[in-house]
Amino acid sequence: MNALSSYAQLMVQRFEPVGFSKVMITDGFWKPKMDKVATATLQACIVQTEQKTGRIRNFEKVARKQGEKHEGIYYDDSDVYKAIEAMAYSLKNHPDAAVQQKADEWIDKIAAAQLPDGYLNTYYTLTGLDKRWTDMERHEDYCAGHLIEAAVAYYNTTGKRKLLDVAIRFADHIDSTFRVTNRPWVSGHQEIELALMRLYHLTNQDRYLKLADWFLDQRGRGYGKGKIWDEWKNPKYCQDDVPVKQQKEITGHAVRAMYQYTGAADVAAATNDQGYMNAMTTVWEDVVYRNMYLTGGIGSSGHNEGFTEDFDLPNESAYCETCASVGMVFWNQRMNLLTGESKYIDVLERSLYNGALDGISLSGDRFFYGNPLSSAGNYGRSEWFGTACCPSNIARLVASLGDYIYGRSEQGIWVNLFVASNTTFTFGKNTVPLQLETNYPWEGNVKITVNPAKKVGYALHVRIPGWSENVPAPGKLYQFTDISSERVEILLNGKSVTYRQDKGYAVIDRTWQKGDVVEVKLPMEVRQVAARTDVKADQDRIALQRGPLVYCVEGVDNQERAYNILVPNKATFTTKSHQVLEEPVVAIQANLSILESATDGLSVQIKPKSITAIPYYAWANRGKSPMQVWLPRRIKEVKITD
Amino acid sequence: MNALSSYAQLMVQRFEPVGFSKVMITDGFWKPKMDKVATATLQACIVQTEQKTGRIRNFEKVARKQGEKHEGIYYDDSDVYKAIEAMAYSLKNHPDAAVQQKADEWIDKIAAAQLPDGYLNTYYTLTGLDKRWTDMERHEDYCAGHLIEAAVAYYNTTGKRKLLDVAIRFADHIDSTFRVTNRPWVSGHQEIELALMRLYHLTNQDRYLKLADWFLDQRGRGYGKGKIWDEWKNPKYCQDDVPVKQQKEITGHAVRAMYQYTGAADVAAATNDQGYMNAMTTVWEDVVYRNMYLTGGIGSSGHNEGFTEDFDLPNESAYCETCASVGMVFWNQRMNLLTGESKYIDVLERSLYNGALDGISLSGDRFFYGNPLSSAGNYGRSEWFGTACCPSNIARLVASLGDYIYGRSEQGIWVNLFVASNTTFTFGKNTVPLQLETNYPWEGNVKITVNPAKKVGYALHVRIPGWSENVPAPGKLYQFTDISSERVEILLNGKSVTYRQDKGYAVIDRTWQKGDVVEVKLPMEVRQVAARTDVKADQDRIALQRGPLVYCVEGVDNQERAYNILVPNKATFTTKSHQVLEEPVVAIQANLSILESATDGLSVQIKPKSITAIPYYAWANRGKSPMQVWLPRRIKEVKITD
Repeated sequence: MNALSSYAQLMVQRFEPVGFSKVMITDGFWKPKMDKVATATLQACIVQTEQKTGRIRNFEKVARKQGEKHEGIYYDDSDVYKAIEAMAYSLKNHPDAAVQQKADEWIDKIAAAQLPDGYLNTYYTLTGLDKRWTDMERHEDYCAGHLIEAAVAYYNTTGKRKLLDVAIRFADHIDSTFRVTNRPWVSGHQEIELALMRLYHLTNQDRYLKLADWFLDQRGRGYGKGKIWDEWKNPKYCQDDVPVKQQKEITGHAVRAMYQYTGAADVAAATNDQGYMNAMTTVWEDVVYRNMYLTGGIGSSGHNEGFTEDFDLPNESAYCETCASVGMVFWNQRMNLLTGESKYIDVLERSLYNGALDGISLSGDRFFYGNPLSSAGNYGRSEWFGTACCPSNIARLVASLGDYIYGRSEQGIWVNLFVASNTTFTFGKNTVPLQLETNYPWEGNVKITVNPAKKVGYALHVRIPGWSENVPAPGKLYQFTDISSERVEILLNGKSVTYRQDKGYAVIDRTWQKGDVVEVKLPMEVRQVAARTDVKADQDRIALQRGPLVYCVEGVDNQERAYNILVPNKATFTTKSHQVLEEPVVAIQANLSILESATDGLSVQIKPKSITAIPYYAWANRGKSPMQVWLPRRIKEVKITD
Repeated sequence: MNALSSYAQLMVQRFEPVGFSKVMITDGFWKPKMDKVATATLQACIVQTEQKTGRIRNFEKVARKQGEKHEGIYYDDSDVYKAIEAMAYSLKNHPDAAVQQKADEWIDKIAAAQLPDGYLNTYYTLTGLDKRWTDMERHEDYCAGHLIEAAVAYYNTTGKRKLLDVAIRFADHIDSTFRVTNRPWVSGHQEIELALMRLYHLTNQDRYLKLADWFLDQRGRGYGKGKIWDEWKNPKYCQDDVPVKQQKEITGHAVRAMYQYTGAADVAAATNDQGYMNAMTTVWEDVVYRNMYLTGGIGSSGHNEGFTEDFDLPNESAYCETCASVGMVFWNQRMNLLTGESKYIDVLERSLYNGALDGISLSGDRFFYGNPLSSAGNYGRSEWFGTACCPSNIARLVASLGDYIYGRSEQGIWVNLFVASNTTFTFGKNTVPLQLETNYPWEGNVKITVNPAKKVGYALHVRIPGWSENVPAPGKLYQFTDISSERVEILLNGKSVTYRQDKGYAVIDRTWQKGDVVEVKLPMEVRQVAARTDVKADQDRIALQRGPLVYCVEGVDNQERAYNILVPNKATFTTKSHQVLEEPVVAIQANLSILESATDGLSVQIKPKSITAIPYYAWANRGKSPMQVWLPRRIKEVKITD
């Protein structure tokens, strides 16, 4: 059996996502955010990419062939591609002729900068082509990956294939340069693997699947060479210490790890490769059971932009790069596709609504690179960054939200996220328009209405969130302090319905007809969360969660203080409508205690105090202010501060 | 009048320093530290430079001409030069054949890497000579400067001129490439100016003075171009917004600023140029009156490695790069030479004994890049850094301490620092051996014995430290909380002597004979210091100082706590002998208060407590532990921490 037919034979996909281009989002929570991305965020990306930095000029310079100088950093091309990708997703839910024109204009410039052999990289083309493909760390393949993702997304939205043809030529150049000749190459920043899998799914060309697999297979064999290998000494930083299929724990640079795992899960889903599947399951447990913040953020150390020891999850110095939370969304989607288990969507939802969404301001034009879980009040959002991966990454994630809501197979529909939207499924020649209505995450009611053209049998899978089952996160890294008696309720056409539970989904398998309505009622109590005792940073502390949202106390709502608040045993919690700038949120009102200096400045006292907690994603939008997610239950140490 | 003769005519030097090679240090405080530098620190530099990194290999690769790859960062050559410079100084007080052999071996490799036209830079020679001198930021001239400094120092210690000849050829190459053709070039990292002045003083070749002046004169004229100008947008970051002679405030990168000012003061001292003198005086006031930490450190922000707003001196996030404190020593020495004012030595001494000395561990082989004034306990010393400027910088400073102790003119001797040592002055044909004995900074008694071959008239200038006159730092940025009645006492041959005060020195102008003894008694009380109220970070806080030493409380001496300590009005202070590892220090024992959690964990209490404070330079030698320099007098805010 040759490699090609073995790939073909093994290609079993359990179920597939419904792509963003088939989903119209109407959600009260997300749609305004997508509109902000479509306007403010994309505008910021455009201004930064085109005017304030030389990212677009670099492409023009290549085309002019006048020996002009490269501006910026060697991986800057990727930000152009990611901005185009974000534009592509955004154009679906927020058509905008000017944005589309800008994308077309950039695509022309990109195409003009491609070399006849398919190579495309402004840094090497402007600084010396003789050096191309000599330094594994210099992000040539990473930039290629983002080009491919942008091309696939732009094609999916617009049907235009100019950028896709550019991407295909470059992918083919890489394939013939490396895989075909088996020239060793360990990507310094994984990304191309998952991108090739997108290209593979679009084109059905096996060589992209094989090339993705080849890139993964290069790792852990001693081929890795270059600056980051030298600097970090330990190939763990590069996820290059053992072959991917033997990896058991997450190490090194968090974003690179996420992108690698996403690609590996993609390949596993396409090939049914047991090696990748086992490795990814084991690594996932290492991440989620021992190394994930309550916000779904990962990477506790800014030093290596990644991981340290298990359970080392400091709050104030948490790195939790926005891109790593975006990567958690990517990877967990793939793990869900690979296994059909809803626990991956629980983690995806956690990262999406907390760690990732926190990376962008409510205004859409200010960003966090790192997303700590507490701040003494000196941390604020930025307009842009020298290394500008995060803004376009969160932009493309929010704009592509439609990718994550539904799944389907030949006999089934999956509802993964509770985002108000419309889509249409087809079963044979029968079309099934589906409408999801909800005010989630503020309220727990979800209404799913189907209107099949004619009666049709399929299994509707509705995700039962882990948190609604008293499981705030898989693996007992976090636990609710009390078991709640409230449970998910599901009604079919207004009446209680018996349903089967499978892999974390409520499954209703029946013949559906026009106007059938499924209502899901999720319990939305305020829950107190404790971390397992191994997490020293959270010991004797509690956090607040309601639905998928993690809460925090921010000084701006609490007389500029967040570090002097105690949660006594008798604490009580209610909810209230609250505004964070223009954003209406459900805030938590808590009767807690505060430790406060007396007016003489020479003593302190503990007083009861009503405290307002807001959703974590909404903090740092009203200036710099102290903030905490984890509040102490007892006074272990006190610091006198200013 | 042509330029040369105008330079020559203006060459007026008020007084000159006595170089390290003429001073034998016997000091109980400094000599062990110099020995540590001579052994542990130089060994660390050698291992890192030669084995753990490719710094020496780069020179070998250039000589082999086999197209091998450059390792490391483009400014790495400078660390080799700085290590040689440190070796050179160290060989004076601590001869070591192995070290000298290593230096000679490196010098051979350096010489072999010089190009026929004098150019010497492994980065460009290995990555593409066509690009040399095209990017003002790439530290080619900076590396040249450190080569020159190393060459001058090595020549001064050993009399060997191989490296000096290399440096001269490179200096001449730079002179003909830039000054002679007047090709614009703004140094991205100042250093070459002060180095050229060293070369000028050694060789008496006017062209080096002119070239130093030319480099300074390039700034602020819009010539600056390249990455750091683009990235920072504002040429203030590069000290390139106005011509040097018009600069009024310190801006941007602290180390670059220090090196520039040092060079400018050098040129001013040599040429009597009023423009530089006025500018440097104004800028110095901006630094010392508004932007200097109590430790003599500067640069409050790690973001730009430099300055923000006046009086913005946060303690925990203080950057205070070791190199910037080293730069403060350089610059203040030059300002003292330029003006004869002892206030510059006050600042020099403050930076030397506190901000700079803190940069190296007591063991001599661990380093700080930044030197904060408080730490929550998560900050520790490192073996080395990717950008390794600090270790060799502090090494060369400590090893060259002999440069800073004495000054001389035709009719005078200046004692600037109280460091036990022997040196010999000559007046005409008369030699005057001078011996300084002291247990400073632990005790305040200083004994100066002169043994002129025959009677000789000169003015002995003994610095009266500002702190002994109730002036902890010029400009009232810091003030003692009480005026002390203790004063400096000076005895001549055992009897009180009347002396003239001039520019902060006690001047005894008489005919000296064999065995004359001057005794200086400095008051060594524990003093409480307050910062002016503009410094928000220090408001309602006090720091402790004794002699030139700033003190801190470190958790390791105080039950692992440093943030819960209050200084009540009734606080009392005594001193005691104490050990920090092997280092005997005079510690301060203070009767203060602490704020502590009660055992129930639900209340706090204030208790009296005896606290030990150690000299700031000695902290962080016993593991990671919280530390504070500025202690609160009142409780303004409390934080509950772990």
